[in-house]
Amino acid sequence: MKQNKYDDPVFFAKYSGMPRSQYGLAAAGEWPTLRAMLPDLKDKRVLDLGCGYGWHCRYAREQQARSVVGVDISEKMLERAVADTDDAAITYQRSAIEDINFDAEEFDVVFSSLALHYIEDYAEVCRKVWHSLVPGGAFVFSVEHPIFSTREAQDWYYDEHGRPLHWPVDNYQVEGIRHTSWLADDVVKYHRNVATYVNTLLDTGFRLTRLAEPVPSAEAMREMPFLEDEVRRPIFLLLAAVKDTK
Amino acid sequence: MKQNKYDDPVFFAKYSGMPRSQYGLAAAGEWPTLRAMLPDLKDKRVLDLGCGYGWHCRYAREQQARSVVGVDISEKMLERAVADTDDAAITYQRSAIEDINFDAEEFDVVFSSLALHYIEDYAEVCRKVWHSLVPGGAFVFSVEHPIFSTREAQDWYYDEHGRPLHWPVDNYQVEGIRHTSWLADDVVKYHRNVATYVNTLLDTGFRLTRLAEPVPSAEAMREMPFLEDEVRRPIFLLLAAVKDTK
Repeated sequence: MKQNKYDDPVFFAKYSGMPRSQYGLAAAGEWPTLRAMLPDLKDKRVLDLGCGYGWHCRYAREQQARSVVGVDISEKMLERAVADTDDAAITYQRSAIEDINFDAEEFDVVFSSLALHYIEDYAEVCRKVWHSLVPGGAFVFSVEHPIFSTREAQDWYYDEHGRPLHWPVDNYQVEGIRHTSWLADDVVKYHRNVATYVNTLLDTGFRLTRLAEPVPSAEAMREMPFLEDEVRRPIFLLLAAVKDTK
Repeated sequence: MKQNKYDDPVFFAKYSGMPRSQYGLAAAGEWPTLRAMLPDLKDKRVLDLGCGYGWHCRYAREQQARSVVGVDISEKMLERAVADTDDAAITYQRSAIEDINFDAEEFDVVFSSLALHYIEDYAEVCRKVWHSLVPGGAFVFSVEHPIFSTREAQDWYYDEHGRPLHWPVDNYQVEGIRHTSWLADDVVKYHRNVATYVNTLLDTGFRLTRLAEPVPSAEAMREMPFLEDEVRRPIFLLLAAVKDTK
């Protein structure tokens, strides 16, 4: 079952209104950390899994990537990506991430931003990414942090005054489907623990090069004080790995 | 400041009464996972940081390790370790873990069970371990999981009937000292997030080979039904790495 919630009109309308949809990478608090985990993109062939509006595809070309392929399951997202892109070196393909079928060693860098927690078979995606990368090629991605994804409510526990008391964790070791209500009812996500995110990479033949649980910058917290809650629990997990050459 | 809580009479008396103190490795729920992360110990020179009663030192010799050095800051723990050990290939040294000072490449395997969350300077320990290991040597250890260590209370959030409602997380990104009350008042521990545990290893020159968040076995849960809560949040984080030869 491959979910395509971004083509649901209600979901899409809400997602389009989010700061990161309107202002792009500058409005994504984790982006400075994720960007720093990418290798130099100059002359590289880049694949972006779950490319959405194409922000990262265009960023890769600004960094002089040789070519970029953006993959997304959502027709609406890709329509806007195409409309916003004027660059023959960027191509968009409509596909579920699980269904990609690229040649061996077709890419130097595979990237994915906040898409793999929608995917049921993470191990299969790791295998396909490994297959499509050159030896030494990089796989860099972000997902919802397991601390964030473990409860379907995905919300704080509040005190009687409506203030966040703490972040509740439960069923952390019970991996699998979560029916959440992010922007719309029944958005299906898949919870995996940190061990599964890391060990599946290692078992596939990747070497882990970085793991991040980013916090917004001090500057961002000054401008947007509500971000201070972000030090209370991690919201995203970022991983960087290379296809091992040993 | 190097804490030596295990020589506090109240703490020591309570610790001595714990199942893992009385029955050893068989009573440590995470041991089967940790054991599986160790390399073959045959003919290896092994260092155990925070060896306590020496259970793991003796295990290493059962696995035909060539020699084992156990280090602990607690005089009482080492007294019992010495009393329980009849093996000239095992030596015990009284030292804070931060103060170890071994020669380069003196060990093939460095092990540590539930000790490094008492250590303020984890990066320095990683550097010292790296220095003392042969190239390709293994560093395998367990610590309290960051989800467990982040709040000083280190306890469930209970409903009005006294049942665990969920595990509360707060101040996860605020690393550093925690004044806990585990077995005695003011047991000082150091909270670090997963990223710090992993990236410090990578930055030191280790290659990550495994990360585990173990759950008790189905058999253990049948025998001890209270262990069922262990699927609700991870209590331990286990890491295995090798001194990189690249």
